[in-house]
Amino acid sequence: MARTQGSHSGITGPRVRDAALKLFAQHGYAAVSMRQIAREVGVQAGALYNYTPDKQSLLFDLMQTHMTELLAACADMPDGGPPIEALENFTSLHLRFHSERPEEVFIAYMELRNLTPENFTKIEALRRSYEDGLETILRSGVSSGDFEVSDPKIATMAVIAMLTGVNTWFREGGRLSLEEVEQIYWDMVRKAVGA
Amino acid sequence: MARTQGSHSGITGPRVRDAALKLFAQHGYAAVSMRQIAREVGVQAGALYNYTPDKQSLLFDLMQTHMTELLAACADMPDGGPPIEALENFTSLHLRFHSERPEEVFIAYMELRNLTPENFTKIEALRRSYEDGLETILRSGVSSGDFEVSDPKIATMAVIAMLTGVNTWFREGGRLSLEEVEQIYWDMVRKAVGA
Repeated sequence: MARTQGSHSGITGPRVRDAALKLFAQHGYAAVSMRQIAREVGVQAGALYNYTPDKQSLLFDLMQTHMTELLAACADMPDGGPPIEALENFTSLHLRFHSERPEEVFIAYMELRNLTPENFTKIEALRRSYEDGLETILRSGVSSGDFEVSDPKIATMAVIAMLTGVNTWFREGGRLSLEEVEQIYWDMVRKAVGA
Repeated sequence: MARTQGSHSGITGPRVRDAALKLFAQHGYAAVSMRQIAREVGVQAGALYNYTPDKQSLLFDLMQTHMTELLAACADMPDGGPPIEALENFTSLHLRFHSERPEEVFIAYMELRNLTPENFTKIEALRRSYEDGLETILRSGVSSGDFEVSDPKIATMAVIAMLTGVNTWFREGGRLSLEEVEQIYWDMVRKAVGA
């Protein structure tokens, strides 16, 4: 069993995860060694193995945590309103959640190739589940006649890519506030789905 | 001077570039050594240095070639038509150009962090120039009353992110042909800019 908080090594999960997150985002997973992660945490490399079996587990843990937190945030969204309201809530949640986690988002997209096939399958399932949430909103809006979308699956991918792209340029304190960005994107998403 | 075709080493630029492209896309720039690239080309590591001074030059060359080819393709687009036509041409060109070059696109986005500051500045300028092309189309459409876009700079980033996202899921031979994908995206882009 991996030791976490309270182990004699004094390493806690969050400290190891933070160090791995920072280093993976900066140099890329393949270029980072367990030794470097240990140095960042401030312990001997050996002590790290009390917490985690290997680097792959750290990567998987980062991605899985990111996706389960995202899904939990989605589950907290108000339910049962009209599709247009659900879509606006989704847009706002996606932009806020991702803009607050630039390193997690970067890793979630860049390091898929470095997951083992089994871990990749698990992360893909979580991601699919997130996409399904948006696709369900789009389909319900098409059914109710509120949206005009020829292919809800493709529209889902298009909307998510458009929103996630904000992370490549948005900086707190720049020309626009996150609220203004949200407003502009919501306007484009709404129009793109014909609402 | 770097030797290229016809050098006694027998290494040609395209062969080295192809090998670097493949390995960088597969393992990430930081994880690939000049020795691995040489092995992929089928020469001794030393011979590689007849062609390129270092790994950074290879990365920069790949990204610069990608962006200058993209800009050249843009320059070839028919000029002077109505904004809606220019936007449709841009959408089609972006989707085709990027879907044909999955590895180049992957590297262009993933490996920006591994460019030296001077090289980063040069690639950023090329990328800015590409974005400016779309922004000019959007602004001209707003002026002519054809488009309804509150912030052409943000709309530019949104459209490019939406279109580039196709690379994460599109596969030749899948449910939809590239032509069908183009049609669906053009419909969404058009609606998103209020045309």
